[in-house]
Amino acid sequence: MAPFNNKVLINVDLGEAYGNFKCGPDEELFPYIDQANIACGFHDALTMAATVRACKTYGIAAGAHPGLPDLQGFGRRELVLSPDEHTANIVYQVGALKGFLDREGLLLSHVKPHGMLYGLCCRDINVARAVMAGVPKGIPVVGLPGTCMERAAEELGVPFWAEMFADVRYYADGQLVIERVRLPWDQEKLKKHVRQEVEEGSVTAIDGTLVDWHFDQDATVTVCCHSDSPGCVEIVKTTREIVDEVNKKRGFK
Amino acid sequence: MAPFNNKVLINVDLGEAYGNFKCGPDEELFPYIDQANIACGFHDALTMAATVRACKTYGIAAGAHPGLPDLQGFGRRELVLSPDEHTANIVYQVGALKGFLDREGLLLSHVKPHGMLYGLCCRDINVARAVMAGVPKGIPVVGLPGTCMERAAEELGVPFWAEMFADVRYYADGQLVIERVRLPWDQEKLKKHVRQEVEEGSVTAIDGTLVDWHFDQDATVTVCCHSDSPGCVEIVKTTREIVDEVNKKRGFK
Amino acid sequence: MAPFNNKVLINVDLGEAYGNFKCGPDEELFPYIDQANIACGFHDALTMAATVRACKTYGIAAGAHPGLPDLQGFGRRELVLSPDEHTANIVYQVGALKGFLDREGLLLSHVKPHGMLYGLCCRDINVARAVMAGVPKGIPVVGLPGTCMERAAEELGVPFWAEMFADVRYYADGQLVIERVRLPWDQEKLKKHVRQEVEEGSVTAIDGTLVDWHFDQDATVTVCCHSDSPGCVEIVKTTREIVDEVNKKRGFK
Amino acid sequence: MAPFNNKVLINVDLGEAYGNFKCGPDEELFPYIDQANIACGFHDALTMAATVRACKTYGIAAGAHPGLPDLQGFGRRELVLSPDEHTANIVYQVGALKGFLDREGLLLSHVKPHGMLYGLCCRDINVARAVMAGVPKGIPVVGLPGTCMERAAEELGVPFWAEMFADVRYYADGQLVIERVRLPWDQEKLKKHVRQEVEEGSVTAIDGTLVDWHFDQDATVTVCCHSDSPGCVEIVKTTREIVDEVNKKRGFK
Repeated sequence: MAPFNNKVLINVDLGEAYGNFKCGPDEELFPYIDQANIACGFHDALTMAATVRACKTYGIAAGAHPGLPDLQGFGRRELVLSPDEHTANIVYQVGALKGFLDREGLLLSHVKPHGMLYGLCCRDINVARAVMAGVPKGIPVVGLPGTCMERAAEELGVPFWAEMFADVRYYADGQLVIERVRLPWDQEKLKKHVRQEVEEGSVTAIDGTLVDWHFDQDATVTVCCHSDSPGCVEIVKTTREIVDEVNKKRGFK
Repeated sequence: MAPFNNKVLINVDLGEAYGNFKCGPDEELFPYIDQANIACGFHDALTMAATVRACKTYGIAAGAHPGLPDLQGFGRRELVLSPDEHTANIVYQVGALKGFLDREGLLLSHVKPHGMLYGLCCRDINVARAVMAGVPKGIPVVGLPGTCMERAAEELGVPFWAEMFADVRYYADGQLVIERVRLPWDQEKLKKHVRQEVEEGSVTAIDGTLVDWHFDQDATVTVCCHSDSPGCVEIVKTTREIVDEVNKKRGFK
Repeated sequence: MAPFNNKVLINVDLGEAYGNFKCGPDEELFPYIDQANIACGFHDALTMAATVRACKTYGIAAGAHPGLPDLQGFGRRELVLSPDEHTANIVYQVGALKGFLDREGLLLSHVKPHGMLYGLCCRDINVARAVMAGVPKGIPVVGLPGTCMERAAEELGVPFWAEMFADVRYYADGQLVIERVRLPWDQEKLKKHVRQEVEEGSVTAIDGTLVDWHFDQDATVTVCCHSDSPGCVEIVKTTREIVDEVNKKRGFK
Repeated sequence: MAPFNNKVLINVDLGEAYGNFKCGPDEELFPYIDQANIACGFHDALTMAATVRACKTYGIAAGAHPGLPDLQGFGRRELVLSPDEHTANIVYQVGALKGFLDREGLLLSHVKPHGMLYGLCCRDINVARAVMAGVPKGIPVVGLPGTCMERAAEELGVPFWAEMFADVRYYADGQLVIERVRLPWDQEKLKKHVRQEVEEGSVTAIDGTLVDWHFDQDATVTVCCHSDSPGCVEIVKTTREIVDEVNKKRGFK
């Protein structure tokens, strides 16, 4: 097997404000990222409009970040929907974002499920299939490699972009360790974690197991940083440095 | 001035259910109408999906019916938004509907503001302009002729479709008499009211004043029936008969 | 064991309207019932005020009917909350109802979880305990006998009122057969079903098994009719007749 | 007229978080305040529970802070409700808070309308009356002296607590200058502004006019600091120092 030699991108969840409530420091992050996953389930249309305009200004690929219809829970509580509800939920939110993209002459880059919906797609093939069924034809889905998300995408012919997480730890089976309260990362540990992902295409799980994704040579691979992690600006900058260095070494600019 | 000789269409507000809550008898109305104004502000994505499919089945032109973001008030209470909020609100809701239309291969036919937003557009030029600014380019807006809606549409180059109401009475200045509880119409009065609209392009206001719209010969003119009026099925059927008879007489089929 | 000889009451879920959306024919049901379970999770404060006033007028015991915070799903979709969230959710909704009761000089009669929350309480002891923990001291909870609800009530010293369902069928283990779309009951089957419940304190499950609750002699027992079942007015009237006849025979008036 | 010699208290709006969204640094403010106005219209029951417990821990008087039912607008957009809707809206939210107070054995101290509802009460006597009508008997309302709020309270026999704002400027007629984005205060200007309020019971409006409230000797007077103003911790500490100093001089402890 060839060593991991792909170009690596950076994606960040943005636009998670709701009316008067602010979330991450979006403005500080725009300069450092390649792909935005734009919140579209909160119905805060003004924030969506502003985030889409920022994507245009900074040349960031604009993707949709639809979540479960549970505003109060920030889309992070499990809500059991029927497959039809899941599909319609995606169609609604992605369509809403496309409304803003169309106005700015931007194309929809990708779709990435938000929060608990992402988790459900990773471990429940039926949810993953129902979500994929709501994604417009030909649009890639961003997800966790080796899970039900990738399997459902393959089954349904949906392009799949694999993502690794800069600021999340992993279990030995490649699933994510979800903490309701995100703890700060030690900078050295973070650098090591990200460097392994970007250089090797693998991660060391919390029990020491090596999780190696064996990415295809033509796989699109992207590293996710969260805009609401403590110290997120530093995390994004660090990740950018490592990604740029490695991409350059691989002959990408 | 030439007599009113245009083809007349019928539009109905549909898809106003919300989860378990049902609204009008949509299924009984589909066979009788030309244009659907599809609720898209309630975030009940399943109902939207079903209504769009019904439009395809029945060959009904599918339009968006965005309202104020006040679900509890059914979009019928006044909520003061900034112009930017108004525009973004329209972009969001129309985009969401387009998501469903795209899946079915249908084009967006038109946009018609819902409830209180319609009323605000009729009497407040700034709201009307902000709403028009959120409508995708080239898509017609359906509205009350002779009001701020028509004026804003002209100013901004938005195509305008004039509508007359089968089941609403008028003031002498051409504005609508809005009743929070809709009362049933006497069938004979209804017929006379609709016949005058369809044959003459005019209406008799509640004080006896003649409101004559003097429609242009190439104006698109459509009669609105509400799906939540008492006796709405009868109202739609009666309107259909009169419209068909008059259209036929004018050489349209 | 003594035969079932308790007084039987009738409870109905009321006030399930939401703004413009109507639900059951509440006005027609008031004269026939003993206990109202008043919707308090929909935040339609006007309907709550009206329902509480009707309880006063008709001498109906007013209870709270708190549900999961999922308006769109009418509280009928599973939403996973932490125990603290469950408790706070009950405190909030019951408190809101008490606000209206206080104004009318009525006491809170009981609390009954709504929809999916009821189902979760029946089968998940942790949810049942968390919900009970939010009920004001000394206030009875209405629930399904022989399930986690009754067990949690006993554990926590919460008074428990057992209910039987007039318009719902049962599994052999005493759990309810929940249908997303309620089908109409045949009147004769309904009468037999209700009569067995009221006379014997038992029910025949869908597989023919006898479910006998062996109610204590001093248990408070109440029959639930739903205000959104098809034919609900007839169901309530029929249940009233049977309950009155049996209560009279037992020496209650 | 006697000089202003009353004891002065400090009130702060707290508990304005919504699920994952945080608002002010509530924890840092608790030690410095006398009265909390607790958000109760956001249905984030967990935050309400925590804020009520903190009031108990710190010995803070716990009041309700009900707002307009417009979560997305943070209760800061105008929404036109009928008088009945206004009354029911207050009953609902205040009742919900009382649910949490009852559990902790705390009494409801006061009610203060939130955001735009406060503004409406100041300038629209009908809204002020409808809101007062929803306040439990005998509970004081906190409001802007000399406005419709005070007038409606007097008319309806509702106890009235007058408040002055530490971090808001005034017009010459005593109404507040509302800024959608709150600007930071210069510390010296703030001290002068607060000192004049606490020592003199008056304020200098933005055009230089003296607004003198001529408080009754037995009036309850309280200074409001906002938990979401920039530099709010400093503002509260400064206000506390001035208030303590003046109260002490007046013989209160």
